[in-house]
Amino acid sequence: MSTSTSLTTTEVYSLLSLSLACVAILANTLQGDGNPLIASIAFSGIAFSSSYALIRWLGNAFIRRGFKGRDMSKTKQTEIPETMGAVCAMVYLFVLIVFIPWPFYKDIVVATSGGGNRDVMQELELVETGRFLHRFPHNKLASYLSALLSLQTIVLLGIGDDLFDIRWRHKVLIPAIAAIPMLIVYFVDFGVTKMVVPTPLRPYLGALFDLGWLYYVYMALLSIFSANSINILAGINGIEVGQSLVIAVLIVFNDALYLSPFAPYPHPATDSHLFSLYLLLPFIGVSLALLMHNWFPARVFVGDTYCYFAGMVFAVDGILGHFSKTLILLLLPQAFNFVYSAPQLFHLVPCPRHRLPRFNARTGLLECSRVEFDRPLARPIAEALKLLHRLRLLDVETHDGGEGEEKGRVVSSSNFTLINLWLVWFGPMREDRLALGLLALQAGVGVLGLFVRHRMALLIFTQDNW
Amino acid sequence: MSTSTSLTTTEVYSLLSLSLACVAILANTLQGDGNPLIASIAFSGIAFSSSYALIRWLGNAFIRRGFKGRDMSKTKQTEIPETMGAVCAMVYLFVLIVFIPWPFYKDIVVATSGGGNRDVMQELELVETGRFLHRFPHNKLASYLSALLSLQTIVLLGIGDDLFDIRWRHKVLIPAIAAIPMLIVYFVDFGVTKMVVPTPLRPYLGALFDLGWLYYVYMALLSIFSANSINILAGINGIEVGQSLVIAVLIVFNDALYLSPFAPYPHPATDSHLFSLYLLLPFIGVSLALLMHNWFPARVFVGDTYCYFAGMVFAVDGILGHFSKTLILLLLPQAFNFVYSAPQLFHLVPCPRHRLPRFNARTGLLECSRVEFDRPLARPIAEALKLLHRLRLLDVETHDGGEGEEKGRVVSSSNFTLINLWLVWFGPMREDRLALGLLALQAGVGVLGLFVRHRMALLIFTQDNW
Repeated sequence: MSTSTSLTTTEVYSLLSLSLACVAILANTLQGDGNPLIASIAFSGIAFSSSYALIRWLGNAFIRRGFKGRDMSKTKQTEIPETMGAVCAMVYLFVLIVFIPWPFYKDIVVATSGGGNRDVMQELELVETGRFLHRFPHNKLASYLSALLSLQTIVLLGIGDDLFDIRWRHKVLIPAIAAIPMLIVYFVDFGVTKMVVPTPLRPYLGALFDLGWLYYVYMALLSIFSANSINILAGINGIEVGQSLVIAVLIVFNDALYLSPFAPYPHPATDSHLFSLYLLLPFIGVSLALLMHNWFPARVFVGDTYCYFAGMVFAVDGILGHFSKTLILLLLPQAFNFVYSAPQLFHLVPCPRHRLPRFNARTGLLECSRVEFDRPLARPIAEALKLLHRLRLLDVETHDGGEGEEKGRVVSSSNFTLINLWLVWFGPMREDRLALGLLALQAGVGVLGLFVRHRMALLIFTQDNW
Repeated sequence: MSTSTSLTTTEVYSLLSLSLACVAILANTLQGDGNPLIASIAFSGIAFSSSYALIRWLGNAFIRRGFKGRDMSKTKQTEIPETMGAVCAMVYLFVLIVFIPWPFYKDIVVATSGGGNRDVMQELELVETGRFLHRFPHNKLASYLSALLSLQTIVLLGIGDDLFDIRWRHKVLIPAIAAIPMLIVYFVDFGVTKMVVPTPLRPYLGALFDLGWLYYVYMALLSIFSANSINILAGINGIEVGQSLVIAVLIVFNDALYLSPFAPYPHPATDSHLFSLYLLLPFIGVSLALLMHNWFPARVFVGDTYCYFAGMVFAVDGILGHFSKTLILLLLPQAFNFVYSAPQLFHLVPCPRHRLPRFNARTGLLECSRVEFDRPLARPIAEALKLLHRLRLLDVETHDGGEGEEKGRVVSSSNFTLINLWLVWFGPMREDRLALGLLALQAGVGVLGLFVRHRMALLIFTQDNW
């Protein structure tokens, strides 16, 4: 079985002109003062076209080497390439490495301009007045490199997982291992483990509370949560990449709030949010290229590598950009899906091997998949399920006939995933409409979260750090 | 086909006691002033035992996923795991990441000791007098991280190569791509592109010659040469890991010369050579574990990943440790093998698909493999081969009978590799004696090279930087 690996003429010309335009913009940044934000946008364009072409070209090589799968939700189940997220991740890493000189260019100018103290002073003055604020102080280089190391580690481990099918209980820890480079450099380089305390708690904890080593535990847990929660909200065409794109765009929007001409400037958090943009713009580039191949009807699968990688990009971004609490707001749908899945994940309720929606070949629509309870459930669990049913948070089927014990017994229920819940709410629908609905939910919750964060922050903190 | 994946009781106890001893040493460095050199040795012990155990445990998983091969030089050709160097490389990278706080611990002490200027001054004084010279100035962190990034990149690309069998002409460039993170950080961080000029050339070039961008080309070429030349001198049990170990030990010996109590202290190059040790000691740890599985009769193969990885460790070490010319001296056998192979690699002379020595199943010995010339060679090439034969640098067979054109025609010759040349010189021998002979050659040439470098350097440079 082989898949089409060539680009159409239109695609070739579009990608080529996009790449050329981006290269021209890049060359232009070298003429002027090397604006890194413009360069980052140009690099994202190059990242998009390279990923797009590589995903197409490498399809057959991946299939030949056993990275392949069948799409269970299609009438015609052909084999398509799997683990294509690894290609995106490699392109992303490469682009981020080549990008390094732009944000750190200032130091080069200082170092090569003759070395006079006057030059350095002048530069420093410009930094003070905000003129060069988009160029990073040099010590941020280590933090940028540690982010790259963590992301490269998660790609290595993700590929290992896609190759060897690591067991769940080990898999869950992969992001924690990948976070280690970032945490260690954080430890060596900054060591700031203080958190701003919400106003109501200040009488007890003070304005700043030093979490100490617990701060590192918090960062590791955030990585585990971010990477795994995206990996759990998965299984239909486009959902893994789609949700990651929505989250990335929302963070970029949040970053832009701090960098807009209307924000107080120079704002103390400007650096952090530029840092965040430099990590996210190329991510949006490669993810878009992947989504165009993974959207219904999917021509490639993304693989666990992509989910881990995307989650880790967010975790690294939130931690090193110092907005980890905002990040959690944007991951609320994932958090809900995790809590909602917990009864099955921890085997309080039987968990079938696959919990994907069921494909109805006759209608061509996806229906919510169900778990059958062959043995009666424990009474408290059965009652809890019935309560969830009444709250429209589950679709439970009970035994109407029978007598005594058998009467009202819970026979089956919809599977405990957000995707199935969506189908319980809105009925069977085509795969792309299901994905669109969930992405709209993600976007809606995210926008609401950001609104609450910026408008309501004053209620629990003395000031918004906007 | 499956391979034994469990450790014997003796192995378990040995590895456990080694690990425990190393952990105890590590804990001890935390009590005192955190001596990073001691910590590095302890980490190398841990790296050894982890690699040893993992190589054994993961064998079957690798075979199942298609990473396997048959040993052509054995009577009984069972399938054994391939690409096991990737396991070593992962352990190595992990150890190097966890090690970060030790050499950069000084800054933590400064940062957490109350922040008084006096403390900082005192520390700086200690640095000046050499007391803390084994702790790095903070700006070395970026260079250490860039080394890690380059090594991680080569592992990623090496695994890609072992998975997808990339074509030769692309493969050759893998180390150049992997060198990019290191080169970019070098560019951003130091930008020193000057070379010390040998005395005879000083009237023309001055004492220091600025190579400019050519210096980056030089570093990229060194990476390509180092990684590929080890990949070419390969094919018999233990030779890839063995030569890497010999080279690593020689570099460690050279580093020790700069750090010994007899060296002028504090020596300006101390930092660089400590840096080199921190990269090499764990490398020796993981390589030793691999060699014990890959030595005759091999129970695992190392894969291209290992060769690239080892070559890249040396390149990174030589470049960031500022002793790239010394490194080239230690790679002389590899350089000879490359030049000697060139006629076949560039198809001046026919090149069979495999140039491994031929296994004689009757005697159990390896014999030099030969290439048959079905068509007559061009006259100058035939004459050159005959000359090499007279110089004992090749074993050429000529057609004794016949007349005219046919008389004296070159019919076959030994293949153009150092391994075959060794068999031409010393006759058929068992695989392990062949490997031992080549390793002795590597060690001898290396020791001689280091002697020349330190004793004779004054003839071409005004001073040895020892």
